[in-house]
Amino acid sequence: MTTKAARLRELLHRPQIARVMGARDALTARLVADAGFDGVWASSFELSASRGLPDVGLLTMAECLSEAVHIDDATALPLLADCDTGFGGRANLVRTVQQYERAGIAGVCFEDKVFPKRNSFLEGGQLLEDAHEFAARIEAAAQVRSHGDFTVVARTEALIAGAGMAEALRRAHLYADAGADALLIHSKRSDAGEIEEFLGHWRRRLPVVVVPTTYPDWSPADAAEAGVSMVIYANHALRAAVSAMREVLTEISLRGGTSTVESSIASMKDVFELTGVAQWEGWGG
Amino acid sequence: MTTKAARLRELLHRPQIARVMGARDALTARLVADAGFDGVWASSFELSASRGLPDVGLLTMAECLSEAVHIDDATALPLLADCDTGFGGRANLVRTVQQYERAGIAGVCFEDKVFPKRNSFLEGGQLLEDAHEFAARIEAAAQVRSHGDFTVVARTEALIAGAGMAEALRRAHLYADAGADALLIHSKRSDAGEIEEFLGHWRRRLPVVVVPTTYPDWSPADAAEAGVSMVIYANHALRAAVSAMREVLTEISLRGGTSTVESSIASMKDVFELTGVAQWEGWGG
Amino acid sequence: MTTKAARLRELLHRPQIARVMGARDALTARLVADAGFDGVWASSFELSASRGLPDVGLLTMAECLSEAVHIDDATALPLLADCDTGFGGRANLVRTVQQYERAGIAGVCFEDKVFPKRNSFLEGGQLLEDAHEFAARIEAAAQVRSHGDFTVVARTEALIAGAGMAEALRRAHLYADAGADALLIHSKRSDAGEIEEFLGHWRRRLPVVVVPTTYPDWSPADAAEAGVSMVIYANHALRAAVSAMREVLTEISLRGGTSTVESSIASMKDVFELTGVAQWEGWGG
Amino acid sequence: MTTKAARLRELLHRPQIARVMGARDALTARLVADAGFDGVWASSFELSASRGLPDVGLLTMAECLSEAVHIDDATALPLLADCDTGFGGRANLVRTVQQYERAGIAGVCFEDKVFPKRNSFLEGGQLLEDAHEFAARIEAAAQVRSHGDFTVVARTEALIAGAGMAEALRRAHLYADAGADALLIHSKRSDAGEIEEFLGHWRRRLPVVVVPTTYPDWSPADAAEAGVSMVIYANHALRAAVSAMREVLTEISLRGGTSTVESSIASMKDVFELTGVAQWEGWGG
Repeated sequence: MTTKAARLRELLHRPQIARVMGARDALTARLVADAGFDGVWASSFELSASRGLPDVGLLTMAECLSEAVHIDDATALPLLADCDTGFGGRANLVRTVQQYERAGIAGVCFEDKVFPKRNSFLEGGQLLEDAHEFAARIEAAAQVRSHGDFTVVARTEALIAGAGMAEALRRAHLYADAGADALLIHSKRSDAGEIEEFLGHWRRRLPVVVVPTTYPDWSPADAAEAGVSMVIYANHALRAAVSAMREVLTEISLRGGTSTVESSIASMKDVFELTGVAQWEGWGG
Repeated sequence: MTTKAARLRELLHRPQIARVMGARDALTARLVADAGFDGVWASSFELSASRGLPDVGLLTMAECLSEAVHIDDATALPLLADCDTGFGGRANLVRTVQQYERAGIAGVCFEDKVFPKRNSFLEGGQLLEDAHEFAARIEAAAQVRSHGDFTVVARTEALIAGAGMAEALRRAHLYADAGADALLIHSKRSDAGEIEEFLGHWRRRLPVVVVPTTYPDWSPADAAEAGVSMVIYANHALRAAVSAMREVLTEISLRGGTSTVESSIASMKDVFELTGVAQWEGWGG
Repeated sequence: MTTKAARLRELLHRPQIARVMGARDALTARLVADAGFDGVWASSFELSASRGLPDVGLLTMAECLSEAVHIDDATALPLLADCDTGFGGRANLVRTVQQYERAGIAGVCFEDKVFPKRNSFLEGGQLLEDAHEFAARIEAAAQVRSHGDFTVVARTEALIAGAGMAEALRRAHLYADAGADALLIHSKRSDAGEIEEFLGHWRRRLPVVVVPTTYPDWSPADAAEAGVSMVIYANHALRAAVSAMREVLTEISLRGGTSTVESSIASMKDVFELTGVAQWEGWGG
Repeated sequence: MTTKAARLRELLHRPQIARVMGARDALTARLVADAGFDGVWASSFELSASRGLPDVGLLTMAECLSEAVHIDDATALPLLADCDTGFGGRANLVRTVQQYERAGIAGVCFEDKVFPKRNSFLEGGQLLEDAHEFAARIEAAAQVRSHGDFTVVARTEALIAGAGMAEALRRAHLYADAGADALLIHSKRSDAGEIEEFLGHWRRRLPVVVVPTTYPDWSPADAAEAGVSMVIYANHALRAAVSAMREVLTEISLRGGTSTVESSIASMKDVFELTGVAQWEGWGG
């Protein structure tokens, strides 16, 4: 039996680009699988928002892990977990790796900002963590895992922080030297220009992951050609849910009833089927 | 300071009908509050579905409570928690009341089916719990709470189970005698006929709650006139999210990118604001 | 790397009898490992008591699993989890197996009483579950696990319930036919007589587990010779803690200070070492 | 009905000194109540150790809160929760206050070290947090609580850190100005000398709490006379349990059975009674 960790590793190394979609819960993950994606992203932004909290490092490791496990239970796809900066110092990050791996999560991603992090798209920016300290954390993460298939992705926010291409590359190489399995290079530009420049210098030293939230016109085909191994759509399912729920709730509130929304929303039967009721009731007893 | 329990009690007793909306998480609860509803329903169907599970009594009390607390944290609205049959025998139900009350939940609803329950809209039906046993449970629930404002709603499934109007009324009176604060009368008919008949006999002995999932044409105004105190829209937000997410995920998967969906989904900034980023960052430090 | 599930399986099948000790938390588990035991038992009685609850089926599956994971994290020993009757109907038991296996627990034990169970040593007894229904649950458990090393122990309470030796044997064979990996035969007699009689008839068809709480004079050597594969000391660590804590707390309360108890309790340094402070701080950062 | 928060506040202000005992779980809390203590302390050291972890900031807020709630459920005594440095930055501390208060905990204690903290009795010491930053956190904590009875204790580690008496007093006054309800002054000296000196200067401006782990000869009577309002015995129950469990487990392992330990450990019946089995079974059903 192939583990999910092995499958995530394979996604990063196969020739074909992998497409990974953020899911905030198990039900969404099932829709992600049905739509044909290759993996699931457990996003800090989505998990925080689902709790009514901004993505500024408020959710604890224990809470994020618990949600990741629920999401992961729902499909056969491997899950990559957004673990922010590792939830504190080096020992906190080590415990994070231990807990996620034992829970059966396929891999984790840490980013090189100071704890508690702020979302990359919030105005005002944030300090980067010292590069050597972060490399030491990546090294600890790689060392403490109990199985080599468990994936550790190092994410650099150097471009987001305005530290420049040279710094982004310097950090990327430090993290690769420290034992990262893949590199996530993040950008908040509205085009993929700086990502393409980075990839030109990087020369596929390690698999590269991108999150094209702000440059949606860059297609997976473009990304694959430029040398990307995995593209993550981090937050679109939740954003789709927010707009749809707001519209339907407003309609129900104003109309004073649900009759006008019934045709535009999933049926109870649809949800029963999505949740495998026949399979569960097949156990009998 | 009025507690949420006191506010839920007031909703049940005020002249104006109360409109309560199911929310599967804190973010949805915030949309529920923004849309002008009076309270939040934590639905077993929605919580189970969010975990990728059918609504057949698989989620434990501890899991349901944990989700209810997350939802309740997000708004000032009172939350009524769907607690199925009480998660086992009489002692399990007593523990449920203790745990929900101490966690600050405003009220709970128990239904008179045998454990583990099946969703009321699943084909095949389900056995009703013995009426006197269920009444004894309601009595225990009322007795064990530490504050009289905590609401215990008794829900009878007699009509759903095909046991007839006389049995529904017999059970309703037993539960009222046992100390229920309100009665939820449930129906799966496509019109409100049997609900109206029930209400005619009931004569407002206790506040009545309805869940018009299958008879959406019955407006709150109709319900109010017939003697209903609270109407619960139990599952529409989740169903709206499912259809919207499915559509957007399919589009991204087929198109190979997110550019065509951006305009129809909530923006990152919208979600930041929904989660109160300015307030949280205002703490500084 | 040998999994913990494989190690538990090996303990049940090796010639030498395995000695397993109940631990209520990670710290206790570490003491269990230090004392040379072969495995850890996560006891419903101990987990319930630690929560201030009697062992009558009040703790949910989610709560028991969470504690089992904490305990299991502390040592390299395999953990066998006491899962009562499976926390409800057949589907609840199936979910229990799925959740415990995915969390990395080595094996689970289910007993053939009706839900919610009562502790075997409480006066008043309890009804046995229908034997064929319980066998169907064991079959479902064996079928739903994703790896064959995950152990399912079937525990019969037939002797405790006074149903007699023939019924105990009939049930044991039914459960073996259904796919149990081992059989736990429980007795509340003050000697091992009925256990020895059972073992004589059983002829090592499957590994047998015993819990000699009420017949402590039966040594592991006796048990091994009679055909037992594993002996579980289910509750002694917690009972030792209760008497010692009560004594020390009473002394501090009466004396008005801790000076007279310092010499009889573990030092802070001792606890620091038990919790691996040097190793954790060795990560630096 | 007096809330637990109100009772904790009363303990800090009554003329008689309050004696509070650390409890690592609900069962221990019940023994604490039986022994006549006035309140319960949920200690980071004890909670971490129970998880097999050193007290160096590894347990998350969510984990500490969950344990605190379990402990608090067991008795009518108010619980004061050790919340380390607040689990991160100012917003993390604010969320901590919100979550503990909503869960019904009577009060929290924050200490002025940098996150992640180290236990005060570990060699090597630790940096103090900037005093004004910590005062701002205390101010935020006092401001964000929803009810004035919820207690915020500010703990200064200035003496432990070797920063001197003047600094300890400067910090204490800053924290009092910021809105702390009580001050915990901590020392690792083997006598109460520096505590007494501090109290002489402090002149009862706010209630003072002490934790005489290293100076056990200072009796509550001495402390009361010197101006202390509350004494916390932070770790003795757990330390008593460790030594007793180690002894009993070793004996069982060496002897090959439990017969020789039965007389020195609590009986099953004792534990049944401690956990209120009669009361729970009295619900019937």
